[in-house]
Amino acid sequence: MADTLISVDLSESPHTNENVHNRWHPDIPINVWVEPGDDFKIETYDWTGGQIKNDDDASDVRDVELEQVHYLSGPIGVKGAAPGDLLVVEILDIGAVEEMNWGFNGFFSKNNGGGFLTDHFPAAQKSIWDFDGMFTKSRHVPGVKYAGLIHPGLIGCLPDRKMLDMWNTRETKLFNTDPERVPPLAALPNTQSAHMGAMKGDAREKAAMEGARTVPPREHGGNCDIKDLSRGCKIYFPVYVDGAGLSMGDLHFSQGDGEITFCGAIEMAGWLHLKVEVIKDGMAKYGVKNPIFKPSPIKPVYDDYLIFEGISVDEAGEQHYLDVHVAYRQACLNAIEYLKKFGYTGAQAYSILGTAPVQGHISGVVDIPNACATLWLPNDIFEWDMMPNANGPTKYLDGSVDMPIAYDL
Amino acid sequence: MADTLISVDLSESPHTNENVHNRWHPDIPINVWVEPGDDFKIETYDWTGGQIKNDDDASDVRDVELEQVHYLSGPIGVKGAAPGDLLVVEILDIGAVEEMNWGFNGFFSKNNGGGFLTDHFPAAQKSIWDFDGMFTKSRHVPGVKYAGLIHPGLIGCLPDRKMLDMWNTRETKLFNTDPERVPPLAALPNTQSAHMGAMKGDAREKAAMEGARTVPPREHGGNCDIKDLSRGCKIYFPVYVDGAGLSMGDLHFSQGDGEITFCGAIEMAGWLHLKVEVIKDGMAKYGVKNPIFKPSPIKPVYDDYLIFEGISVDEAGEQHYLDVHVAYRQACLNAIEYLKKFGYTGAQAYSILGTAPVQGHISGVVDIPNACATLWLPNDIFEWDMMPNANGPTKYLDGSVDMPIAYDL
Amino acid sequence: MADTLISVDLSESPHTNENVHNRWHPDIPINVWVEPGDDFKIETYDWTGGQIKNDDDASDVRDVELEQVHYLSGPIGVKGAAPGDLLVVEILDIGAVEEMNWGFNGFFSKNNGGGFLTDHFPAAQKSIWDFDGMFTKSRHVPGVKYAGLIHPGLIGCLPDRKMLDMWNTRETKLFNTDPERVPPLAALPNTQSAHMGAMKGDAREKAAMEGARTVPPREHGGNCDIKDLSRGCKIYFPVYVDGAGLSMGDLHFSQGDGEITFCGAIEMAGWLHLKVEVIKDGMAKYGVKNPIFKPSPIKPVYDDYLIFEGISVDEAGEQHYLDVHVAYRQACLNAIEYLKKFGYTGAQAYSILGTAPVQGHISGVVDIPNACATLWLPNDIFEWDMMPNANGPTKYLDGSVDMPIAYDL
Amino acid sequence: MADTLISVDLSESPHTNENVHNRWHPDIPINVWVEPGDDFKIETYDWTGGQIKNDDDASDVRDVELEQVHYLSGPIGVKGAAPGDLLVVEILDIGAVEEMNWGFNGFFSKNNGGGFLTDHFPAAQKSIWDFDGMFTKSRHVPGVKYAGLIHPGLIGCLPDRKMLDMWNTRETKLFNTDPERVPPLAALPNTQSAHMGAMKGDAREKAAMEGARTVPPREHGGNCDIKDLSRGCKIYFPVYVDGAGLSMGDLHFSQGDGEITFCGAIEMAGWLHLKVEVIKDGMAKYGVKNPIFKPSPIKPVYDDYLIFEGISVDEAGEQHYLDVHVAYRQACLNAIEYLKKFGYTGAQAYSILGTAPVQGHISGVVDIPNACATLWLPNDIFEWDMMPNANGPTKYLDGSVDMPIAYDL
Repeated sequence: MADTLISVDLSESPHTNENVHNRWHPDIPINVWVEPGDDFKIETYDWTGGQIKNDDDASDVRDVELEQVHYLSGPIGVKGAAPGDLLVVEILDIGAVEEMNWGFNGFFSKNNGGGFLTDHFPAAQKSIWDFDGMFTKSRHVPGVKYAGLIHPGLIGCLPDRKMLDMWNTRETKLFNTDPERVPPLAALPNTQSAHMGAMKGDAREKAAMEGARTVPPREHGGNCDIKDLSRGCKIYFPVYVDGAGLSMGDLHFSQGDGEITFCGAIEMAGWLHLKVEVIKDGMAKYGVKNPIFKPSPIKPVYDDYLIFEGISVDEAGEQHYLDVHVAYRQACLNAIEYLKKFGYTGAQAYSILGTAPVQGHISGVVDIPNACATLWLPNDIFEWDMMPNANGPTKYLDGSVDMPIAYDL
Repeated sequence: MADTLISVDLSESPHTNENVHNRWHPDIPINVWVEPGDDFKIETYDWTGGQIKNDDDASDVRDVELEQVHYLSGPIGVKGAAPGDLLVVEILDIGAVEEMNWGFNGFFSKNNGGGFLTDHFPAAQKSIWDFDGMFTKSRHVPGVKYAGLIHPGLIGCLPDRKMLDMWNTRETKLFNTDPERVPPLAALPNTQSAHMGAMKGDAREKAAMEGARTVPPREHGGNCDIKDLSRGCKIYFPVYVDGAGLSMGDLHFSQGDGEITFCGAIEMAGWLHLKVEVIKDGMAKYGVKNPIFKPSPIKPVYDDYLIFEGISVDEAGEQHYLDVHVAYRQACLNAIEYLKKFGYTGAQAYSILGTAPVQGHISGVVDIPNACATLWLPNDIFEWDMMPNANGPTKYLDGSVDMPIAYDL
Repeated sequence: MADTLISVDLSESPHTNENVHNRWHPDIPINVWVEPGDDFKIETYDWTGGQIKNDDDASDVRDVELEQVHYLSGPIGVKGAAPGDLLVVEILDIGAVEEMNWGFNGFFSKNNGGGFLTDHFPAAQKSIWDFDGMFTKSRHVPGVKYAGLIHPGLIGCLPDRKMLDMWNTRETKLFNTDPERVPPLAALPNTQSAHMGAMKGDAREKAAMEGARTVPPREHGGNCDIKDLSRGCKIYFPVYVDGAGLSMGDLHFSQGDGEITFCGAIEMAGWLHLKVEVIKDGMAKYGVKNPIFKPSPIKPVYDDYLIFEGISVDEAGEQHYLDVHVAYRQACLNAIEYLKKFGYTGAQAYSILGTAPVQGHISGVVDIPNACATLWLPNDIFEWDMMPNANGPTKYLDGSVDMPIAYDL
Repeated sequence: MADTLISVDLSESPHTNENVHNRWHPDIPINVWVEPGDDFKIETYDWTGGQIKNDDDASDVRDVELEQVHYLSGPIGVKGAAPGDLLVVEILDIGAVEEMNWGFNGFFSKNNGGGFLTDHFPAAQKSIWDFDGMFTKSRHVPGVKYAGLIHPGLIGCLPDRKMLDMWNTRETKLFNTDPERVPPLAALPNTQSAHMGAMKGDAREKAAMEGARTVPPREHGGNCDIKDLSRGCKIYFPVYVDGAGLSMGDLHFSQGDGEITFCGAIEMAGWLHLKVEVIKDGMAKYGVKNPIFKPSPIKPVYDDYLIFEGISVDEAGEQHYLDVHVAYRQACLNAIEYLKKFGYTGAQAYSILGTAPVQGHISGVVDIPNACATLWLPNDIFEWDMMPNANGPTKYLDGSVDMPIAYDL
């Protein structure tokens, strides 16, 4: 059996665990070391560290403290790994923990995080998803069932000092273009609820003040929220510090491309079984700046899609220039309108797009002025046939079940 | 055998063919009528109407007259189709014509069209792709071979007057924000080389002045350049005028998500075998604003991918806010750097990304401030193994073969 | 464009065409030569040479002259290919001919050929399948539609003298164990309707007397009826004579594993676009006795299966020892009973199993005394949902349409 | 969390566990009851009850007591299930147990069980396979790695008295045609090492004397060894007794079609997470005699195959009549010869065919006198490229590692 190198106790605060951290900083010490070729297990908290409960009240989503996220397990040192190398991480397996056999999905309040469609869904809402073996269902979103495509939303190596400075500089610059914006343009360093792993004293205070938030994906990977980093995939990470310093968390049972609901996919605590190797000087050999990866041979096969198109004209009819973000939002809104014809509420439809293994494709980015994005909705996740036909849609749901909502106080 | 309802003669100018047009306008007359349930064949020019030649000189790409594009075959009337209906189009088959058993891909000059990576590849270049049955190869890009995923880059129904006006209004508004920009922000109506089908006289002149260019995708579909509209798929189009008025063209033998090279995919003349049905009042029944479609069961299976990530920090290190366009550009640039390590020139690598069935996924759009996009490169299209390993890449190509280039005069 | 090296005229008897033959014999002369690396096209008759008509009368199936089959196009010589080599054949494309845009499937009379379930369906029946682009449907079997998986049922190289003698010896030995059996145990050499290509005079007479029938698959491949030899696959054939002498025919638009209806798949005339290469001394290098092949990346994806099991206990309850033939027959009969619950006649269900891309798996061959075989029926070929549910099946068909039948005279 | 309804202690003899049995008999009492709609977990022994060890000595395979097999967990009662119903079993998940994170594969001695290729591999041999998360590798068979396709080799419901009698009658009849045969034609009832669950006293003795061995697949399913009954599939079982009486065991981490090595697949102890439903009167409603099933959306995708053909002419050149068993044996032998060219020993190659997710297709069963079977070998399981090329194969292995062998004493 592979050894569990980092354990977490869901009944305790993540801040008591020195092998957990929630900021990126080169000085966070590596406590756990492995050899290239080793395989081992790592446990993780859910990204909020247990702030969201399995109940029918969305006030926990509304009141979530986002300064806490994301609780990562690590950093793990790989002996011999040095700056410029590629760290090869194979996800041999991944799963939920026995004591938390469920996950959550939600929409943040527009005033506390927001999300992709926050103008359409400004209030906090949540849905709870139960895990039945390799499948999940929700009492708040009837009629759908997915096979797990379990993956870490967040995984990557520690930045070095130079990279950290670059991150902070460029993100501060953007933030300062509109510092009052809600939600903000960037999540800047913030000592509130910072967890710096085993760091202590002044060094900890200083690092907390400059440690990069874990929110965005960056050159090292990080919070990419790529649904395809699932069991069986092999990822090649850039290494910036001696030992690499691999950390991970934010496990998702299932997610659609884009993680559009932001809070988020089907979020869960869990464990990973990993194997690591090193390609010496791999960054230069292969010209790698951001991580690359090879997906798994064992992902769920959902290939009976209905596909929705969106173009870069926004809800107000405004023309945008090759803006894929706007185009994908339109494709998502189109899919939500479609699902409502079958009886889903808008919130339920939005939740499905955030949690099911939908694909989001960049279909056209050169035909001025409109980008074209497509949303691929798998038909096989529904209990019912959701394809169009000459008779029109059947209302399978009567609206009696909806997702809990919590309005801002 | 299905009848060929629209024929084209590649040796003649498309302007001599009254069943061809290159602008969108509600007054373009329907000359060809079919019944719901009919199947039939349609021939098309390549999108440029034959401007690009099968040779090793890229000056034709440099000098292309973009006002001509795209030459569409149609409009086809479907009896009984009325505004508010959905026109169901099934692509029963699609192929190249005997007399043009090859296609082209290229990069426009930055001063005449440009493209997704025009700052990196500002000069005109082209590659010629030969069709060997269901496969294609290029003498200008050695070592790759793809199975055809043949599709019309452009297909949709005629707009009504109200929709046409809306298009022109919003695009003009955008254009006017920076009217001197090269390439321009939008392609506005332009009588130069306009082909208004069977229209004649003053009506033609007036329509040419206000007819929408075919360049962008819009509510009716149009130039979506979605590679998955291939043989076997079924598309549901909004109908705006009596008879629907379906037109199509811009056939591609193969293309990657995004059609990033703009000129374009592997462009070809060809034919489509179509079947049409009507869902009465389908737009309201299903809440459809843009087309939706069901992809084919017979697309090539390339599922051994190597995946490149990109984030919304541009080449200059500038931070953008959740900009998927920027993120996808970085993923593409990352893939090009990778391919160069194996001996491809940058132009060849760019051409592969534009022509091979690569996928472009919107992987994360909520993790402020960085969007994350992924480029999925199929390993099986290469003669060689392109996966990373501990020994580093092998240079399979010595640079002796490259794509023709033509600098601006 | 690739040249068409062998043409056929469906309005003329195949016996007038010297590039056609219907027996295997090393002395059949090679009239058509190509170089390794060449690609070219070959036309073929349907396997019966046009004996079956597109009508609603099954008497042509009942009265078919089986001595005529199979009309093959070839032999094609590949320069430099020599005994012991592997001939690599890539099927670049394959299709139907314009003038015969349909195919047939049938059951032979038990007294003239029989078939896999001949005891259950002893009379001749047929169904006609129309080709709509890449799809096929039948007026005799409503409610199903398949994407083509077009392939040559029969393809291989000429045997040398030694191999021909071995074939005749071993098959005659089997035949002689029960020479009166109907249908016979083997199809032995027979001069009736023999077509020996360009051979003439005494040599032709002698060769006709000893030429192997084309009915069974043998070491060279031949009539393997493997549905996966479709467009895009690459086959490695053993070579026995100088020039290889490649011949092919018996094209199928679609077929299930086992070609259980015998007459046969969806049989058609057509053309192939091929490319050939040679691996010198490949038989010894790779230890190849029978052909090996790599299937295509462009086969239809039907992966929503319902799977039927069968064991080696026959219809009378008799126990057989690890007999996969009996087990697969039971799986087929189980599937037919199932389909009858939805309204299909037994003949229609049998026809579906013979023509649709069903898979037949050898699931267990060691658990004495029962072999276990499985029949994989793709659900997506049906207009209706054919999965079991708690309410029981819906009768979609009222029995008013059935396949033509012709009883023995 | 789902409750574990049947636990096993691998350190104790299965004979001490009343929820385990190794014979089929209607009188074995149901101790564990569930409701339709329940989900629950079941643990199982490996099929031999722990007779095979994780070491490099094959004498345990040689000396295995086959009268013990297979140790099944059950029978489980489903309330309300009655004869004539279909019991719907969904495999929500399945896995290995922590304390036995490995499996075994072997060949029985020809004098004690034999196997599909026992004439070619008459001595006992074994290989040990370690589980690394969802993947497996063997120190005895280098260079291959598979994703798990974990499944119960054996699962089904209790027979009623009438079915039991029919089984015993027909198998005895076959056995008696050659009672001295080694291996025997059938495994008849045998009290040696019989485990009748919770039965006691005279009733137990009587039941042991007439209880059907678990070796063959039969009408109820049973030992089908179908590799596709993996996590995510849904099986519809005939019910013969009140409560159904579902039992299962013989878990495999991975297996090829046919389970040709007999001892067996990669055999393991483990657990299943199941959900059950009932379709009342389903056997008649759907015409079901043997189980039917719908495979999973989450099976490993290995679709880069090299395919080997075999025909029904045996190793001695003897012609058999449409015998798929002989044809599949030839395809397997052909694949073994091929793999030997790359350096594998025959035993290693045989072991790969028994353990990897190879497919065995019944390709042609009507072309007298030869059946054609195909073996589909997935290329992606190998560390090396195993495809043919003009240069011939590379010997990747030097023969220094082989599988342990134990000759008969």
